[in-house]
Amino acid sequence: MKDLDDLKQGVFQGQKRAIARGLTWIEQGRQEGKLLAQQLFAHGGRAHVIGVTGSPGVGKSTLVNALTLHLRHEGYKVGILAVDPSSPFTGGAILGDRIRMQDSVMDPGVFMRSLASRGHLGGLSRATFGALTLLDAAGFDKILIETVGAGQSEVEIMQMAHTTMVVLAPGMGDDIQAIKAGILEIGQIFVVNKADRDGADHTVRSIRSMLGLTSEHPEWMPPIIKTVAEDGRGMEEVNQALFRHHQYLTEHGLLDRFRWTQTEHVIEQAVSDLGERLVRKARLENSWAKRVVAVGEGSADPDRVAEEIWRHTIQED
Amino acid sequence: MKDLDDLKQGVFQGQKRAIARGLTWIEQGRQEGKLLAQQLFAHGGRAHVIGVTGSPGVGKSTLVNALTLHLRHEGYKVGILAVDPSSPFTGGAILGDRIRMQDSVMDPGVFMRSLASRGHLGGLSRATFGALTLLDAAGFDKILIETVGAGQSEVEIMQMAHTTMVVLAPGMGDDIQAIKAGILEIGQIFVVNKADRDGADHTVRSIRSMLGLTSEHPEWMPPIIKTVAEDGRGMEEVNQALFRHHQYLTEHGLLDRFRWTQTEHVIEQAVSDLGERLVRKARLENSWAKRVVAVGEGSADPDRVAEEIWRHTIQED
Repeated sequence: MKDLDDLKQGVFQGQKRAIARGLTWIEQGRQEGKLLAQQLFAHGGRAHVIGVTGSPGVGKSTLVNALTLHLRHEGYKVGILAVDPSSPFTGGAILGDRIRMQDSVMDPGVFMRSLASRGHLGGLSRATFGALTLLDAAGFDKILIETVGAGQSEVEIMQMAHTTMVVLAPGMGDDIQAIKAGILEIGQIFVVNKADRDGADHTVRSIRSMLGLTSEHPEWMPPIIKTVAEDGRGMEEVNQALFRHHQYLTEHGLLDRFRWTQTEHVIEQAVSDLGERLVRKARLENSWAKRVVAVGEGSADPDRVAEEIWRHTIQED
Repeated sequence: MKDLDDLKQGVFQGQKRAIARGLTWIEQGRQEGKLLAQQLFAHGGRAHVIGVTGSPGVGKSTLVNALTLHLRHEGYKVGILAVDPSSPFTGGAILGDRIRMQDSVMDPGVFMRSLASRGHLGGLSRATFGALTLLDAAGFDKILIETVGAGQSEVEIMQMAHTTMVVLAPGMGDDIQAIKAGILEIGQIFVVNKADRDGADHTVRSIRSMLGLTSEHPEWMPPIIKTVAEDGRGMEEVNQALFRHHQYLTEHGLLDRFRWTQTEHVIEQAVSDLGERLVRKARLENSWAKRVVAVGEGSADPDRVAEEIWRHTIQED
């Protein structure tokens, strides 16, 4: 496919148009999108993938913006994926928040995209994984995934991040909500944003005492960082914490293990895609109706029919 | 598998213990559960599957209880699945509501079960489909699926029903919410419950005028029925509406089409299950690590590897 090859070249060169087009293919769950993500996978594995999660109102988007500016000053290329599973559209609120990022739109070292569920179950996780793969292959050093941390697909998406930052804000009763949502266990870095407000130290102390209770991180003690994202305060500390966590992952072989697991996932997905493709082919054959009748009336076992489809259809594939 | 055969016999005889055990297998997503549902499929296709959906507070559970009693008096065997995707547990609220149903617990012609998400995405739809298959094979004439009609898995679940009843109540601002949620398009029967309250006629009129706007049902005009489920008023009308819709589906060949689509779905699922099984086998082989390395570094195409796994592993299956 010439189209696909051209697009791949564009992605490797970091062309924004090619990246945007590839992401659209992937987001729409199109066949070319699946193929593209699959073929780009081997060209990635270098980016540091950072999840940013927290309740609405804690200032996640502002933090992502401020951190992006900081990382750009350090010379990193930054990709941003804002994921909103609740919205069937690309969320208006997210777009509004992004107005502040307009400066970055002109910057070739920043790419930002909102991903929303396209209605089919599990589609959002897959699209996010594909989008990550693409940005990784396009040479972005840091990829930030921003999401409201609730719901099944979001948990799945957070598992794609090497480092998860949990963002809280003072006086939002977040301390208790956080335990409830199990958010403490997933955070490797905690950010108390809007730290110029009353109660910031109290929030820090609550997190610290709760972290003390869970001794699940024998070697990595999650830092708690106070920020005021609105004016960029604390971004250097966040940057350093990210750097240290990345170092920790590297030294303990955890990045390699991550890559290994993701590669296994790619193979599993390829097997399942192949199955779907063979079913689509089998549907077009004359034998399909006979098979459906046989399974419906019980004269054929669905398992046997599945094997037949595989054996028979893969021959001609 | 002797266990599986015993269980199947128990299900065919309508034994509650066998049914309950089978449902647990299915709900837990266990291999035996998948196999059981697959093997029972051909023994079903007779039940009338009825979805009952509506916002919390409209009295869905009470309606289901009252309708169940009525259907029992008519001589039907009734299976009930209460589906709650939001709850990782079997919801306390649902259990509470069911206390009123204790009479039915002793009745061999009624079987009730709450299904909740077991944490894995898409798992709830599959479990519900399996549970339906089992109750159908066990000889229940009417199967009621009760769910709060929001969220992706619930939409998928509602698509398993032959007839969907949308339940509303006066004065809940449901009219506007209903349009928003697209609930009008999925309803083939509308029930205005708590019709002894003020505003019932207003709710009926709102639904009627909104139904007039959507002309998606050229041959079936959804009836709007007022009920007071608490004392059983309106159940006969609901029963008749269900009967007429079932007749409509039969006459237009829609029941047959439904069965056909579900049979195709069973085959697709069997193909995908076979794929998962082969991957599990391939993981145990020495070649697995080599394959992962090759895909990770790009010396092998995931698609090729997927085909290899199929060809190679299915030989020995």
